[in-house]
Amino acid sequence: MWIILTYDISVKRNSKALKICRKYLSHVQKSVFEGEVTANKLDRLKHELANVIDYENDQIAIYEFDTLRYSAKEVIGYQITTDNVL
Amino acid sequence: MWIILTYDISVKRNSKALKICRKYLSHVQKSVFEGEVTANKLDRLKHELANVIDYENDQIAIYEFDTLRYSAKEVIGYQITTDNVL
Repeated sequence: MWIILTYDISVKRNSKALKICRKYLSHVQKSVFEGEVTANKLDRLKHELANVIDYENDQIAIYEFDTLRYSAKEVIGYQITTDNVL
Repeated sequence: MWIILTYDISVKRNSKALKICRKYLSHVQKSVFEGEVTANKLDRLKHELANVIDYENDQIAIYEFDTLRYSAKEVIGYQITTDNVL
Protein backbone atom coordinates (compact mmCIF):
# COMPACT_ATOMS: atom_id res chain seq x y z
CA MET A 1 0.00 0.00 0.00
CA TRP A 2 1.01 3.61 -0.37
CA ILE A 3 1.22 5.77 2.75
CA ILE A 4 1.78 9.31 3.95
CA LEU A 5 3.19 9.51 7.47
CA THR A 6 3.25 12.78 9.39
CA TYR A 7 4.57 13.24 12.88
CA ASP A 8 4.77 15.77 15.68
CA ILE A 9 7.52 14.46 17.92
CA SER A 10 9.47 16.28 20.62
CA VAL A 11 12.95 17.39 19.60
CA LYS A 12 14.42 14.97 22.19
CA ARG A 13 13.04 11.94 20.34
CA ASN A 14 13.04 13.38 16.84
CA SER A 15 16.33 12.02 15.55
CA LYS A 16 15.45 8.45 16.51
CA ALA A 17 12.02 8.69 14.88
CA LEU A 18 13.54 10.30 11.79
CA LYS A 19 16.02 7.47 11.40
CA ILE A 20 13.29 4.85 11.67
CA CYS A 21 10.98 6.54 9.17
CA ARG A 22 13.80 6.97 6.68
CA LYS A 23 14.45 3.22 6.68
CA TYR A 24 10.99 2.63 5.20
CA LEU A 25 9.90 5.84 3.48
CA SER A 26 11.02 8.89 1.53
CA HIS A 27 11.51 12.03 3.60
CA VAL A 28 9.57 14.74 1.80
CA GLN A 29 9.12 17.52 4.35
CA LYS A 30 10.50 18.17 7.85
CA SER A 31 7.91 15.92 9.51
CA VAL A 32 6.39 14.18 6.48
CA PHE A 33 7.30 10.90 4.81
CA GLU A 34 5.73 8.95 1.97
CA GLY A 35 6.17 5.73 0.10
CA GLU A 36 5.04 2.26 -0.86
CA VAL A 37 5.21 -0.34 1.92
CA THR A 38 3.95 -3.86 2.42
CA ALA A 39 1.57 -4.49 5.32
CA ASN A 40 4.42 -6.32 6.97
CA LYS A 41 6.83 -3.42 6.70
CA LEU A 42 4.17 -1.01 7.93
CA ASP A 43 3.73 -3.17 11.02
CA ARG A 44 7.46 -3.11 11.65
CA LEU A 45 7.61 0.66 11.14
CA LYS A 46 4.77 1.21 13.63
CA HIS A 47 6.35 -1.16 16.10
CA GLU A 48 9.71 0.61 15.93
CA LEU A 49 8.09 4.03 16.32
CA ALA A 50 5.96 2.83 19.22
CA ASN A 51 9.17 2.05 21.11
CA VAL A 52 10.46 5.59 20.65
CA ILE A 53 7.56 7.98 21.10
CA ASP A 54 5.97 9.40 24.21
CA TYR A 55 2.28 8.67 23.78
CA GLU A 56 1.18 11.72 25.76
CA ASN A 57 3.28 14.28 23.94
CA ASP A 58 3.99 12.94 20.47
CA GLN A 59 1.72 12.06 17.60
CA ILE A 60 2.10 10.05 14.41
CA ALA A 61 -0.59 9.97 11.74
CA ILE A 62 -0.51 7.36 8.99
CA TYR A 63 -2.76 7.76 5.95
CA GLU A 64 -3.05 4.51 4.01
CA PHE A 65 -4.13 4.28 0.38
CA ASP A 66 -4.85 0.95 -1.22
CA THR A 67 -3.06 1.10 -4.51
CA LEU A 68 -3.28 4.76 -5.39
CA ARG A 69 -0.75 7.45 -5.22
CA TYR A 70 -2.21 10.89 -4.61
CA SER A 71 -3.89 12.17 -7.73
CA ALA A 72 -1.86 15.37 -7.54
CA LYS A 73 0.76 16.90 -5.29
CA GLU A 74 1.88 20.48 -5.24
CA VAL A 75 4.85 21.78 -3.29
CA ILE A 76 5.13 25.51 -2.60
CA GLY A 77 8.36 26.92 -1.16
CA TYR A 78 11.75 25.37 -0.58
CA GLN A 79 12.66 22.12 -2.27
CA ILE A 80 13.85 19.42 0.05
CA THR A 81 17.48 18.36 0.18
CA THR A 82 19.29 16.25 2.72
CA ASP A 83 20.52 19.50 4.31
CA ASN A 84 17.31 21.31 5.09
CA VAL A 85 15.27 18.45 6.50
CA LEU A 86 17.58 17.36 9.29
CA MET B 1 -11.70 17.47 -3.89
CA TRP B 2 -10.25 16.14 -0.68
CA ILE B 3 -6.81 17.38 0.40
CA ILE B 4 -4.11 16.88 2.97
CA LEU B 5 -1.98 19.97 3.55
CA THR B 6 1.29 19.79 5.46
CA TYR B 7 3.59 22.69 6.15
CA ASP B 8 7.00 23.51 7.52
CA ILE B 9 6.83 27.22 8.26
CA SER B 10 9.11 29.32 10.44
CA VAL B 11 7.73 30.15 13.85
CA LYS B 12 7.63 33.84 12.87
CA ARG B 13 5.07 33.22 10.16
CA ASN B 14 3.37 30.20 11.70
CA SER B 15 0.41 31.88 13.38
CA LYS B 16 -0.64 33.65 10.18
CA ALA B 17 -0.40 30.46 8.14
CA LEU B 18 -2.26 28.52 10.83
CA LYS B 19 -5.12 31.01 10.79
CA ILE B 20 -5.41 30.81 7.01
CA CYS B 21 -5.38 27.01 6.90
CA ARG B 22 -7.98 26.78 9.64
CA LYS B 23 -10.40 28.89 7.59
CA TYR B 24 -10.52 26.17 4.95
CA LEU B 25 -9.49 22.89 6.59
CA SER B 26 -9.55 20.84 9.77
CA HIS B 27 -6.43 21.06 11.89
CA VAL B 28 -5.43 17.47 12.60
CA GLN B 29 -1.80 17.65 13.71
CA LYS B 30 0.58 20.49 14.57
CA SER B 31 1.46 21.13 10.90
CA VAL B 32 -1.17 19.01 9.14
CA PHE B 33 -4.63 19.93 7.89
CA GLU B 34 -7.22 18.01 5.90
CA GLY B 35 -10.63 18.51 4.38
CA GLU B 36 -12.90 18.81 1.41
CA VAL B 37 -12.45 21.96 -0.68
CA THR B 38 -13.68 23.19 -4.03
CA ALA B 39 -11.07 24.03 -6.67
CA ASN B 40 -12.01 27.65 -6.11
CA LYS B 41 -11.41 27.53 -2.37
CA LEU B 42 -8.14 25.71 -2.88
CA ASP B 43 -6.99 28.51 -5.16
CA ARG B 44 -7.88 31.08 -2.53
CA LEU B 45 -6.12 29.09 0.18
CA LYS B 46 -2.94 28.84 -1.91
CA HIS B 47 -3.11 32.52 -2.77
CA GLU B 48 -3.46 33.54 0.88
CA LEU B 49 -0.59 31.28 1.93
CA ALA B 50 1.61 32.54 -0.90
CA ASN B 51 1.32 36.03 0.58
CA VAL B 52 2.56 34.86 3.95
CA ILE B 53 5.36 32.36 3.40
CA ASP B 54 9.03 32.86 2.70
CA TYR B 55 9.69 30.75 -0.39
CA GLU B 56 13.28 30.04 0.54
CA ASN B 57 12.67 28.87 4.08
CA ASP B 58 9.12 27.59 4.26
CA GLN B 59 7.38 24.73 2.50
CA ILE B 60 3.77 23.76 1.97
CA ALA B 61 2.79 20.43 0.41
CA ILE B 62 -0.74 19.83 -0.82
CA TYR B 63 -1.87 16.29 -1.67
CA GLU B 64 -5.04 16.32 -3.74
CA PHE B 65 -7.42 13.36 -4.07
CA ASP B 66 -10.23 13.40 -6.59
CA THR B 67 -13.18 12.16 -4.64
CA LEU B 68 -11.59 9.77 -2.18
CA ARG B 69 -10.86 10.15 1.42
CA TYR B 70 -7.87 8.12 2.61
CA SER B 71 -8.79 4.46 2.73
CA ALA B 72 -7.56 4.28 6.30
CA LYS B 73 -6.01 6.58 8.87
CA GLU B 74 -4.31 5.62 12.06
CA VAL B 75 -3.24 8.05 14.75
CA ILE B 76 -0.68 6.97 17.34
CA GLY B 77 -0.02 9.15 20.39
CA TYR B 78 -1.78 12.23 21.72
CA GLN B 79 -5.22 13.12 20.48
CA ILE B 80 -5.54 16.60 19.13
CA THR B 81 -7.42 19.29 21.03
CA THR B 82 -7.48 23.03 20.48
CA ASP B 83 -4.91 23.32 23.30
CA ASN B 84 -2.12 21.15 22.05
CA VAL B 85 -1.97 22.25 18.44
CA LEU B 86 -1.49 25.97 18.92
